[in-house]
Amino acid sequence: MAERFEIVEKALLQMLAAKKYASARDILTTMNPSDIAGIFEELEESQIPLAFRLLRKEQAAETFVEMEPEAQELLIRGFSDNELKEVLQELYVDDAADLVEEMPANVVKRILKNADPEMRSSINQILQYPENSAGSIMTTEYVTLRPDMTVEESILRIRRQGVDKETIYTCYVTQGRKLIGLVTVKDLLLAQDDEMLIQDIMLTNLISVTTHTDQEEVARMLGHYHFLALPVVDKEDRMVGIVTFDDAIEVIQDEATEDMELMGGMSPSEKTYLRNTPLDLFKNRIPWLMLLMVSATFTGLIITAFEGALAAQVALTAFIPMLMGTGGNSGSQSSVTIIRALSLDEVDFRDIGRILWKEFCTALMCGIALAVVCFGKIWLVDRMLMGNYDITLMVDAVVCLTLAVTVVCAKIVGCSLPILAKAVHLDPAVMASPFISTIVDALSLLVYFLFAQTLLGV
Amino acid sequence: MAERFEIVEKALLQMLAAKKYASARDILTTMNPSDIAGIFEELEESQIPLAFRLLRKEQAAETFVEMEPEAQELLIRGFSDNELKEVLQELYVDDAADLVEEMPANVVKRILKNADPEMRSSINQILQYPENSAGSIMTTEYVTLRPDMTVEESILRIRRQGVDKETIYTCYVTQGRKLIGLVTVKDLLLAQDDEMLIQDIMLTNLISVTTHTDQEEVARMLGHYHFLALPVVDKEDRMVGIVTFDDAIEVIQDEATEDMELMGGMSPSEKTYLRNTPLDLFKNRIPWLMLLMVSATFTGLIITAFEGALAAQVALTAFIPMLMGTGGNSGSQSSVTIIRALSLDEVDFRDIGRILWKEFCTALMCGIALAVVCFGKIWLVDRMLMGNYDITLMVDAVVCLTLAVTVVCAKIVGCSLPILAKAVHLDPAVMASPFISTIVDALSLLVYFLFAQTLLGV
Repeated sequence: MAERFEIVEKALLQMLAAKKYASARDILTTMNPSDIAGIFEELEESQIPLAFRLLRKEQAAETFVEMEPEAQELLIRGFSDNELKEVLQELYVDDAADLVEEMPANVVKRILKNADPEMRSSINQILQYPENSAGSIMTTEYVTLRPDMTVEESILRIRRQGVDKETIYTCYVTQGRKLIGLVTVKDLLLAQDDEMLIQDIMLTNLISVTTHTDQEEVARMLGHYHFLALPVVDKEDRMVGIVTFDDAIEVIQDEATEDMELMGGMSPSEKTYLRNTPLDLFKNRIPWLMLLMVSATFTGLIITAFEGALAAQVALTAFIPMLMGTGGNSGSQSSVTIIRALSLDEVDFRDIGRILWKEFCTALMCGIALAVVCFGKIWLVDRMLMGNYDITLMVDAVVCLTLAVTVVCAKIVGCSLPILAKAVHLDPAVMASPFISTIVDALSLLVYFLFAQTLLGV
Repeated sequence: MAERFEIVEKALLQMLAAKKYASARDILTTMNPSDIAGIFEELEESQIPLAFRLLRKEQAAETFVEMEPEAQELLIRGFSDNELKEVLQELYVDDAADLVEEMPANVVKRILKNADPEMRSSINQILQYPENSAGSIMTTEYVTLRPDMTVEESILRIRRQGVDKETIYTCYVTQGRKLIGLVTVKDLLLAQDDEMLIQDIMLTNLISVTTHTDQEEVARMLGHYHFLALPVVDKEDRMVGIVTFDDAIEVIQDEATEDMELMGGMSPSEKTYLRNTPLDLFKNRIPWLMLLMVSATFTGLIITAFEGALAAQVALTAFIPMLMGTGGNSGSQSSVTIIRALSLDEVDFRDIGRILWKEFCTALMCGIALAVVCFGKIWLVDRMLMGNYDITLMVDAVVCLTLAVTVVCAKIVGCSLPILAKAVHLDPAVMASPFISTIVDALSLLVYFLFAQTLLGV
């Protein structure tokens, strides 16, 4: 995105600076709200309200939705009540609910005061659902049809009601508020006969979610079924809203980002990278670094306990980083693979046996291959080439046996911890590289020194 | 998905075993093709063709598309030419092209022989585009309108042509094959007057991609603009296809999986986890483990070079794992953050200055906080509690100074390598934890021994 709009951005900035508002307006008119929001983010704070007022009415609302919360707050504080009303009128209910969630209390008060009563009650309804649930991301604006309507009546109803609905392409058939079927506009347009009844053409094999379904599950279902929208029902099976595909795309991207942040040993961030201050980044990162640093005390204790062995065979120390590194990498391969498979619903707890077996076989192959190559490398490079004659055949054997065993342990730990985390309803992504490495580091040192004691007698 | 369908799955398996085909068909009729495919995957190979023949015609094609390549191949080999023709007729062109790409040569021959000429030429057109380009994932089935058509004529045309199109909701206005505008079915249905001309209501502010645009960019754009579909044009600006939102969801999920696999130090896999054999997993994982193991030779050499220092101050060895671990974790935090921001297009090469500064400030805060806590921890726990009196105030200072410097170096390396990778058109995700750790391990050891030499005189 960044590069495509550089030219437009520069032109616009120049026009605003030169107060050529008519030309600026002409450029803005041709642009997509998502891009306008991106450009507005680059403006100075004082210019944003000015630039915003150049937009056409519907464009203004759509641009507003795409902006970052800081800019939204700035704009609302500058709006007259009338301006605020106009923007709110154009918003979809789910976007209005998002806005209310993001803004500070005094701004929320103004928003609710200026929203019309229907929107106010819809916002309140959406806000009552838990964060990250289907209810919290749904919109309450959708088209409903009755089973006894004809195709023609239905199309008329869509034409009358459609303008305010987030999607008109999937219409929901309800009876006494209960969801009993769905009809797409494609079905309506392609129907042979305008007099056919909805109940005869509607799809009754419904797939819906409840208000409390996790948003990640909702997004995955939308992707799985290739649906434009999924209906949301309450505990009594009454239809209360829909979640649309564009919300799903956002959820999928956000959840992937969150998983990656956790895998990298950080608390997930709500903001984009450039919006985060160093202090924000520090707060997300330091708890994990502290935790992992302190837990590395164990590796220190193990080394101290075997100080005698290291002193007797100085060559052993040189291989500690390689052993821990390879163990950590092996473990993170397995943990990342399983975390992703869990998150895509490809595996679940029932598969633990299959997973352990698969990882064990893979680990055995990796461990043996690595050990064989390592054995040769140590002998040829470290001993012959570098002339480190402290490395005896036995030292080489201890290192490579440790390597093989460590890789197997690391992969077993790496694949089982995420599954166990999921089983106790923790986020599996927490059990990724940094966490696994810390455990595997300690394990590999223990194995190392045990082999050294047994085989070298140190 | 797994759990929701366990009951249906069991019932179906029992019916098939008991040869109650009529009841099995009745159950299948009520189900969504995506779910049927999931259940079929669990059947024994010999049962799949049998179960498949129970499906209704359109259901069969949709189920076929959702199945794994192995099962698709099995089915095609069992199909008569007539059966194959029927399934192919119901497929969308982009799905047919995917199929041709996945199947072995002799199966492809049969597919092309049984496809109708129009589909055959569309498949060939799609296959000529590079892998992962917009051209390779687009479909050539979409509705086109002419600018001089009226709203009424357009709706008639959609009703006549729509049945075979992947989406009818966005229609593209072309003139001499050039794309000049778009109209949504919503616009058509909500138009005030059926006699209005398309050229008067069409959107001309078009956003399109070219056949060679990367699929990741296409998916990001669909998400960014909340579009149902994006038009694909060739070098001469002629419209050749569309990419729809459901393809975008798939691309976004696949690209996130690929990034995570690379971040975990693995080659990306084409198959789902349970479909991968241990040998597949081995092949994806071993090259990286080998590479990283061999590059750990450097850390070994550094330790060997400073063997004298370690022998003089045995307490120093115990802190090596903690220093390398914390360095690795700090680096992977930064690299994961930047890799994700690059992949979401939140930052690009131009931002390198801002990123370096932000990471430097964050690193400084993290480094100082960690060093202070570590200093106290070593003194209180390792010296006083554990009674390791080899740890002098100076040793403690060397460890904590190294820690702070390592964290800063790690974050700078961690954030800059992915950006540099992107600048030379490598996948930034390769520059993640395992790779960064290997570099940071060597760096932290060097810093450690330099401080030890300077401050402890060893």
